[in-house]
Amino acid sequence: MIIVMQAGATADQVQGVSDLITEMGLTPQPIQGSDLVVVAVIGDDRLKDGSKLEQAPGVDRVMRVMSPYKMAAREATGGERTRVRVGQGDGCVFGGTQVPVISGPCSVEGEQEILHAAQLVKDAGAHALRGGAFKPRTNPYAFQGHGEDGLKMLAAARDATGLPIVTEVITPGDVDLVARYADMLQIGTRNAQNFKLLEACGKAGKPILYKRGMSMNLDEYLQAADYILAAGNADVVLCERGIRTFENHSRNTLSLSAVPELNRRSHLPIVIDPSHGTGHAYLVPDMARAAIAAGCDGLAIECHPDPKHALTDGAQSITPEVLADLMRSLSRVAEAVDRTCLPLVDVL
Amino acid sequence: MIIVMQAGATADQVQGVSDLITEMGLTPQPIQGSDLVVVAVIGDDRLKDGSKLEQAPGVDRVMRVMSPYKMAAREATGGERTRVRVGQGDGCVFGGTQVPVISGPCSVEGEQEILHAAQLVKDAGAHALRGGAFKPRTNPYAFQGHGEDGLKMLAAARDATGLPIVTEVITPGDVDLVARYADMLQIGTRNAQNFKLLEACGKAGKPILYKRGMSMNLDEYLQAADYILAAGNADVVLCERGIRTFENHSRNTLSLSAVPELNRRSHLPIVIDPSHGTGHAYLVPDMARAAIAAGCDGLAIECHPDPKHALTDGAQSITPEVLADLMRSLSRVAEAVDRTCLPLVDVL
Amino acid sequence: MIIVMQAGATADQVQGVSDLITEMGLTPQPIQGSDLVVVAVIGDDRLKDGSKLEQAPGVDRVMRVMSPYKMAAREATGGERTRVRVGQGDGCVFGGTQVPVISGPCSVEGEQEILHAAQLVKDAGAHALRGGAFKPRTNPYAFQGHGEDGLKMLAAARDATGLPIVTEVITPGDVDLVARYADMLQIGTRNAQNFKLLEACGKAGKPILYKRGMSMNLDEYLQAADYILAAGNADVVLCERGIRTFENHSRNTLSLSAVPELNRRSHLPIVIDPSHGTGHAYLVPDMARAAIAAGCDGLAIECHPDPKHALTDGAQSITPEVLADLMRSLSRVAEAVDRTCLPLVDVL
Amino acid sequence: MIIVMQAGATADQVQGVSDLITEMGLTPQPIQGSDLVVVAVIGDDRLKDGSKLEQAPGVDRVMRVMSPYKMAAREATGGERTRVRVGQGDGCVFGGTQVPVISGPCSVEGEQEILHAAQLVKDAGAHALRGGAFKPRTNPYAFQGHGEDGLKMLAAARDATGLPIVTEVITPGDVDLVARYADMLQIGTRNAQNFKLLEACGKAGKPILYKRGMSMNLDEYLQAADYILAAGNADVVLCERGIRTFENHSRNTLSLSAVPELNRRSHLPIVIDPSHGTGHAYLVPDMARAAIAAGCDGLAIECHPDPKHALTDGAQSITPEVLADLMRSLSRVAEAVDRTCLPLVDVL
Repeated sequence: MIIVMQAGATADQVQGVSDLITEMGLTPQPIQGSDLVVVAVIGDDRLKDGSKLEQAPGVDRVMRVMSPYKMAAREATGGERTRVRVGQGDGCVFGGTQVPVISGPCSVEGEQEILHAAQLVKDAGAHALRGGAFKPRTNPYAFQGHGEDGLKMLAAARDATGLPIVTEVITPGDVDLVARYADMLQIGTRNAQNFKLLEACGKAGKPILYKRGMSMNLDEYLQAADYILAAGNADVVLCERGIRTFENHSRNTLSLSAVPELNRRSHLPIVIDPSHGTGHAYLVPDMARAAIAAGCDGLAIECHPDPKHALTDGAQSITPEVLADLMRSLSRVAEAVDRTCLPLVDVL
Repeated sequence: MIIVMQAGATADQVQGVSDLITEMGLTPQPIQGSDLVVVAVIGDDRLKDGSKLEQAPGVDRVMRVMSPYKMAAREATGGERTRVRVGQGDGCVFGGTQVPVISGPCSVEGEQEILHAAQLVKDAGAHALRGGAFKPRTNPYAFQGHGEDGLKMLAAARDATGLPIVTEVITPGDVDLVARYADMLQIGTRNAQNFKLLEACGKAGKPILYKRGMSMNLDEYLQAADYILAAGNADVVLCERGIRTFENHSRNTLSLSAVPELNRRSHLPIVIDPSHGTGHAYLVPDMARAAIAAGCDGLAIECHPDPKHALTDGAQSITPEVLADLMRSLSRVAEAVDRTCLPLVDVL
Repeated sequence: MIIVMQAGATADQVQGVSDLITEMGLTPQPIQGSDLVVVAVIGDDRLKDGSKLEQAPGVDRVMRVMSPYKMAAREATGGERTRVRVGQGDGCVFGGTQVPVISGPCSVEGEQEILHAAQLVKDAGAHALRGGAFKPRTNPYAFQGHGEDGLKMLAAARDATGLPIVTEVITPGDVDLVARYADMLQIGTRNAQNFKLLEACGKAGKPILYKRGMSMNLDEYLQAADYILAAGNADVVLCERGIRTFENHSRNTLSLSAVPELNRRSHLPIVIDPSHGTGHAYLVPDMARAAIAAGCDGLAIECHPDPKHALTDGAQSITPEVLADLMRSLSRVAEAVDRTCLPLVDVL
Repeated sequence: MIIVMQAGATADQVQGVSDLITEMGLTPQPIQGSDLVVVAVIGDDRLKDGSKLEQAPGVDRVMRVMSPYKMAAREATGGERTRVRVGQGDGCVFGGTQVPVISGPCSVEGEQEILHAAQLVKDAGAHALRGGAFKPRTNPYAFQGHGEDGLKMLAAARDATGLPIVTEVITPGDVDLVARYADMLQIGTRNAQNFKLLEACGKAGKPILYKRGMSMNLDEYLQAADYILAAGNADVVLCERGIRTFENHSRNTLSLSAVPELNRRSHLPIVIDPSHGTGHAYLVPDMARAAIAAGCDGLAIECHPDPKHALTDGAQSITPEVLADLMRSLSRVAEAVDRTCLPLVDVL
């Protein structure tokens, strides 16, 4: 931390700040500038809430120097990138050269529906099946998902297709239940700072697809990822799904620069969700291509056999035909950046 | 809903959209404009996800007309404003002429500390005591609160001062526990769309202080309030605590126009939290005054006997001395807008 | 500036950064922390673009310590607040105890119309007349104002009522023309970083009402104010008129915490524009009251005799009847914060 | 437009709104829904400020249906995309299969410097040279560019290399001067709604690189492009350079979904500026690749022979070596999306 003193701060005030820093178990180092004094803090202050020093007399403001996250930080693995395997076999591994695509409908609408959808996304080339059994709906009167029945339908779809399944968990009490059926648990954007859920997922024994909160900055995001990691689960995949801005042509603003920046700061793989990231099916293919070109480690794409009859999120779901075309295109883009995005059949 | 067709949409496409609307149990009414056709939807479509119609051929976009919330809407009470009483007696009622102030430290730091703080905020004139026993911390390694012990300390502080207590609950499994001790349960901004928590609070049997999510718009906020109301709890107090914007001089941007706008749309009382809304103690008094002038029904203000030694949120906590001065000033501003903000001793 | 080195930066890299700082005419002071090295920069670096040091090997990032503005800074006047007199006499002075209100229609629609409006806002108690002769319209096909004819109409309205006039100038070539007629020149939000216009207004010889850009932070705003001040014009009044955020219930988000923060940083008076700041007439009175309670030095309020027939900005214009009521209410709020907002007749 | 009446609006109020619409020269069509009445407006209302109807009794709000821009709209050219040629020959054409890259330093620092830089970016494969002679600096005390001398240096660099030159113009009075030297005039983000400058550029007789304002939405952006087009200049190239959001890891947030969305709405080519769009050289290559994959028609990339000594924007400038590598990579990505990004020598 650096404590910036006000112009005209007295020596006593600088001493007062230094004393407070010493009290915190850290070492103050005052520096006399041309116009201002700043006090540098020596010591590991990542877990110290130094902003309270703002209240000491003569302080103008407090600036943080060290990153507040630890286990998610690049340094934690000595620079080595984490690989996260989902399901059995090598069909869906995040963090390697191959870029897997998770696809499927927003909601599990029924057993036949999910089986049908699963087969179609598999045929299109996807590497994992997504589908919501527990839906966090903005509107309390809207369809909330089929719950455990939905999980069973997903398991049936996995049995039928071999695709690992990715599904959301929305409350700590459901983590064990969901982990019994799913190959990967998703934490959604609205729960990105539901810390009890993060902790529970840290003990789930299954990989986590952890979506960024729509107004979290990356420091906050990686700190929150530490909740999962610190609870014992090393298999965390980050997911950028759009942030909230003034922009109104898309449901969210897909901040693709998060990809290289997270790669710079963290060892965790990063998936892009262009469906929620835009909210419109017509924007999904271009943004999926852009995501791979930006260096992401995977994609999550909503796909529905008949979007205009989808129970949820129809506007942003592409059809299996569009997905199949897109997969071919993604494969070409991946090669252009020395990655691969081969259909499942070619990976295995 | 209004479905806006693309320029050049064919009659068949308009018919297709009309058929989809009919399938949804609603009635289409196409309107031929000078350049475009729009299809109006007749019927109660608040619970219909019409955005999927965007995927029908010839559709440009879908615009929502009806508000998606019901129980939180002004119409739900025939225009009458809700009053929410906290604790026994008339000392702390939100939604009437008097504007209560909830104050206290961010965290319950210890028994002596909270007793001391409680007495000071009471002496300063506050109407309820806040303090966190369960803290949703951005950083997993930071102090997370004393849990049930903290609740007991709060209860002791209530016994000592007579102030009702307001404290946060962060996960559904804790709701019953917190409700046993607290007079009002707070749902924090990071849990504003933790729908399972909202539902559980809907059955808590105690009033709820429900903070707006830092990137929720008001439609989303009132829909989410419906979760609590629909679960059976009518005693909901809204709380604006700042939204996330590009602005960097404050921790959040306190959007005070939410006060008159929420009053226009909803019957629920609205509290302003200028502490989180600014993040800096030096901005709190002016924004507290502004909040009352804007028409809010209550305030939540962090106050700590020694902010520069606070365990959490020191930068935004004012001292009891500043609070006492502020209360006198708030009382004058309240009178200027035909409200009162009298110290507790004068209310009872 | 503080240069934060990467974890593991070498001594050579620290030396390299130090050499670059020396080259810039400043003095480096490396500080060895527990995990990181930072290099503090000693000397006046306000005008140095140190961010380029980010490109030196081993640098993680660059943090600015000193405020980048000079003449607008509080220190520039030794803490004394600037007063800006508009027009002849004492009827409209910003920065003192009295809070003047600028009011009138968005556009000068015609001579009779502006004379009528001027009389009505004067009768309601306003202290200056606003009206646009040159309109910066988002849409190129929309009404752009009456130009010099509009200025003449404004002058006629001043002659008739005695109200000083405030009107916008949108391009450097018009500054002299507008300054011949107006008592105060307004720089609009879309021109807030039109630096050639700022410079020209710095030589206008008339006070400037300088609106904040809708996405400028306060550092950028005060730096830009320095353009006007440095060109020789000390009579600058700042104006917060709403920033652009995700919030969609209002046209902009009125960031009232800018008032106490600008008072903390600058000696310049600050006016609030609740009309543009909300975009809806029904939000204006509450936000005008809040602005005064927050400590602003003036208000700019759009008022039109018949808003639903206004040529521009009808949705956010209040009627003269509402203005008259509001002025009475503002006067009460002003007294509650030890200011006055007396009608013009009572000021003179 | 659609006028949404309040719940409980009376027949007289609906009639009042209908009368106002008729007065505006448009035709009202009331529609009785299940809970609300809406009044649809028939007729071309693109240039009507209907939001004032919000002030008529019984109105809840006003929703716009038609796009407010005309000449920039896709329909204006019958769906054909515009091609904009910069300089002589076919080396730099925006809107075709080939994706040109504009590169060079932020500022023209001196004659030798720009000649050297020009040769390096040409050798790296760029198609046009950028460099600022007039710099719109946030800080009034910072280097403002060499003015006409800088233009002459740019012309000399064009003579030496054959690269067309792109440079910014910041005020209407300079347009003719800049147009005498430059092959393409750039309008910067801070001037994106400097409408007098847009009009002047509409008569410049040279192509315009028109950057989006950092807080403009796409409707506002295309309306403003209409200013240039309506003044007679068809050669407009749009440029997304990042928007302002809460995100703090990058200087701006590069909103790449603007590429497919602008392609959907407009016939104008769209260039991406990953340098300003991120603010950090280490993010530029990935975002440049992403931009091409998203379907952009060109790139603008800051490149400086020695970024850590650059006079301006050093943090975001890549070196010529990085540029040369990047060009090879971009060429591969372009091919993967059926475009080309061949070095200049291969285009001619």
